[in-house]
Amino acid sequence: MPDRSLIFPSDEFRGRIAQFQARMAAARLDALLLTSPADIFYATGFLTRFWESPARPWFLIAPTKGEPVAVIPSIGADLMSRTWIDDIRTWDAPNPNDDGVTLLADTLCGLCPSGGRIGLPMGLETHLRMPLADYERVGEAIGDRTFADATDCVQRVREIKSEAEIEKMRATCIIAGNTFDRVPEFAGAGQTLDAAFRAFQMVCLAEGADWVSYVAGAAGPDGYGDVISPADTRPMQDGDILMLDTGATKDGYFCDFDRNYAIGIASDAARKCYDALWQATDDALRDLRPGHRSSDIHKMLSDGLRQRGAEPVRGRLGHGLGVTLTEWPSATPLDDTELRAGMVLTLEPGAIIGPGRMMVHEENILLREDGPELLSPRAAPELPIL
Amino acid sequence: MPDRSLIFPSDEFRGRIAQFQARMAAARLDALLLTSPADIFYATGFLTRFWESPARPWFLIAPTKGEPVAVIPSIGADLMSRTWIDDIRTWDAPNPNDDGVTLLADTLCGLCPSGGRIGLPMGLETHLRMPLADYERVGEAIGDRTFADATDCVQRVREIKSEAEIEKMRATCIIAGNTFDRVPEFAGAGQTLDAAFRAFQMVCLAEGADWVSYVAGAAGPDGYGDVISPADTRPMQDGDILMLDTGATKDGYFCDFDRNYAIGIASDAARKCYDALWQATDDALRDLRPGHRSSDIHKMLSDGLRQRGAEPVRGRLGHGLGVTLTEWPSATPLDDTELRAGMVLTLEPGAIIGPGRMMVHEENILLREDGPELLSPRAAPELPIL
Repeated sequence: MPDRSLIFPSDEFRGRIAQFQARMAAARLDALLLTSPADIFYATGFLTRFWESPARPWFLIAPTKGEPVAVIPSIGADLMSRTWIDDIRTWDAPNPNDDGVTLLADTLCGLCPSGGRIGLPMGLETHLRMPLADYERVGEAIGDRTFADATDCVQRVREIKSEAEIEKMRATCIIAGNTFDRVPEFAGAGQTLDAAFRAFQMVCLAEGADWVSYVAGAAGPDGYGDVISPADTRPMQDGDILMLDTGATKDGYFCDFDRNYAIGIASDAARKCYDALWQATDDALRDLRPGHRSSDIHKMLSDGLRQRGAEPVRGRLGHGLGVTLTEWPSATPLDDTELRAGMVLTLEPGAIIGPGRMMVHEENILLREDGPELLSPRAAPELPIL
Repeated sequence: MPDRSLIFPSDEFRGRIAQFQARMAAARLDALLLTSPADIFYATGFLTRFWESPARPWFLIAPTKGEPVAVIPSIGADLMSRTWIDDIRTWDAPNPNDDGVTLLADTLCGLCPSGGRIGLPMGLETHLRMPLADYERVGEAIGDRTFADATDCVQRVREIKSEAEIEKMRATCIIAGNTFDRVPEFAGAGQTLDAAFRAFQMVCLAEGADWVSYVAGAAGPDGYGDVISPADTRPMQDGDILMLDTGATKDGYFCDFDRNYAIGIASDAARKCYDALWQATDDALRDLRPGHRSSDIHKMLSDGLRQRGAEPVRGRLGHGLGVTLTEWPSATPLDDTELRAGMVLTLEPGAIIGPGRMMVHEENILLREDGPELLSPRAAPELPIL
């Protein structure tokens, strides 16, 4: 059997809970209720792909002092008992009459005093991973206790990565980097994007990924139309630009970066666009510092593209990264989140290369006091040709 | 570019919306709001791994008559425009000031009359995939319209698979079956479960899976302790039972079945347990009919195990299957959902083989009027030895 501390020593998790508790105190919250896979993994180390099943809700409750309590389906008791969590309360789920509602409400009442406030992430980039009707039932069952938004409590803690987390993310980035190095083995003229996606995932696993949570990409003449579609079965042709983007995971930590390749030949337009993306990224790698705002990333990358004659795409040009494929903040003009040392971010400039066609480029960085440290192996300075 | 109808002809989707609308009318709902990846894929064919990013909410609204409206982040407009959906309204997400709230509320007000009821899945096995605070904001913005539970509307439709869906699921089951046939190539004494998980996923992709959303399994002497843990790095030994369980996908449709193997040698206890699981499954394959309740599956499998001297595990012994790894109903004593022809289900008996050790077995079936049709290639009648 693995150690009780499946991913990190228990002190790592105790430190995280202590940080939650400090912010709970400042926000006058008497308990914190977590329901999402990422939040529960972050607090406990409970790592399972079983979240893929929407059948059962899972809960973790942190009181203001002391250790958190897991309220979970009994099928997870064995795995949870191997984490650092000692207080594990279970029910046989799914139960159509009471799917953990009574057990959760009783636990909340035991941990939060009458009249108290129970924090729950309710804001941007959060979801309540339990049936809405059951949330309302719990609300009725907890008497005069109320739910309050705890998005800030959770996000301000999760967004600063410990050195132990950074090691995990660096390892995942290396796996993806090694995979990208092997793209010439399986992609080129005459092959389909569909086959390339499949081969990419296989190589990623061979290179050490636990699983491949996300692969996207596109291929088209001098660029592509969008970056979230499934693969098509058109054979790639000379002059296509192939982009592959992956969010592989190792020990529950993600990478998220892409690479571009020209099939056979690269046009001047494609080379120039690639160069603008690469150079704009270099600007941000040189200039970004703690104290900047997330919106500054957008400005640096947009300015860098325009200075080199490229027009930025709409939408965000980077985001946080960690125990989910994307985390806050967003590199948009509207996001004024302060950037702090310890944040792991993606720099993701995209440029319009022609009507309905773009190219995107992405690196993963750790923001240190003195600036960015690359976690992804830096992309080649010139567009690689397959 | 792929066809506009990415997964099925548009008539398939029109039929699904018509079924939703018939149930909406019966439930006196004036609109239906869908937010989950599975519900939106089911209604539109919008297939993307981009859901892996929790950053952005996505919405589909079906009125009582006519075609549904997509209210989505602009990054998805290109892909959504290739589905059968014509009315696509977008905003630039994530927007920390208004992340689609106004656009969604305006759309709901346009499709649902004043005083009307907007259906939303709120029940067992559903989640609201948008920030809770934004849901509350939408509720305030829609005036005297109210949200009502529409779980039944959605689940009673989704649970009956069309012949087109069944073809997809059969194809996914064949991919997984071919993968299980190749387990002897990569698993055996001296190898780790971790390496077996990785190899299993690679072979699954090589056999044609688009991606491998779920792999679980375990290995231990004469059985295993739980079935949701990540792989450990202990080398497998003679006498271990290895179980691998997968939810691979092809065109967005899942399989979910497992297979057991003995490493080197199989004890009498393991052979006997395997036989009880296999025979109990055979009983259900012979006897299950439309008109039974989901709880009857639990009874058939439990009785079948006990008749052969095996003790059933706690928890459910099967479930629905389709566009998520698990769907309702659940084969538990408490779930009285009526089984109907066209349901795709898993039969998943588990038996206790010793203290803290069990074995589980799983097949995927389509329930026809005259009984179950296997979608998974039937497991070997005797425990295979690697």
